[in-house]
Amino acid sequence: MNYTDIIGLFAGICVTISVVPQIIKVWKTKKVKQISLKTFGILTFGLLIWIIYGIIKNDLPIIITNCVSFCLNLIMVYFIIYYEKE
Amino acid sequence: MNYTDIIGLFAGICVTISVVPQIIKVWKTKKVKQISLKTFGILTFGLLIWIIYGIIKNDLPIIITNCVSFCLNLIMVYFIIYYEKE
Repeated sequence: MNYTDIIGLFAGICVTISVVPQIIKVWKTKKVKQISLKTFGILTFGLLIWIIYGIIKNDLPIIITNCVSFCLNLIMVYFIIYYEKE
Repeated sequence: MNYTDIIGLFAGICVTISVVPQIIKVWKTKKVKQISLKTFGILTFGLLIWIIYGIIKNDLPIIITNCVSFCLNLIMVYFIIYYEKE
């Protein structure tokens, strides 16, 4: 692993974990009115397509990072739908 | 461009444009209290690192898609800081 790979990995980790503070915020406040369901819906859908792309290309880093992102953003989508109803 | 490239491009477009509905929502409501600055801050920072990675690797698709994402998410960061103060 050279320094370019490390930069890529670092970038990937930042982007992947970035949604976590938003999940924690919604979890604590149970408020989602200002958050866009469209944004997290389109994002989660896009990540699913990335996973399919990774599977076709047999590219494990793409599959793994996008699977983690997909799961985290799916939690957000669930939260938005669940707490919007309440 | 084969069908795999098209899938990748489609995934990239979805992920890139996903933040637009959130920008529009904040623009209309001027409310950001429930939105996590940490999430959009870390995301924007991660996208900047992706751009650096793309420059090092001389990979134009990575540079272009992440530049668009970076600019869009920077708008979100600005909105959150600006409207939080108000």
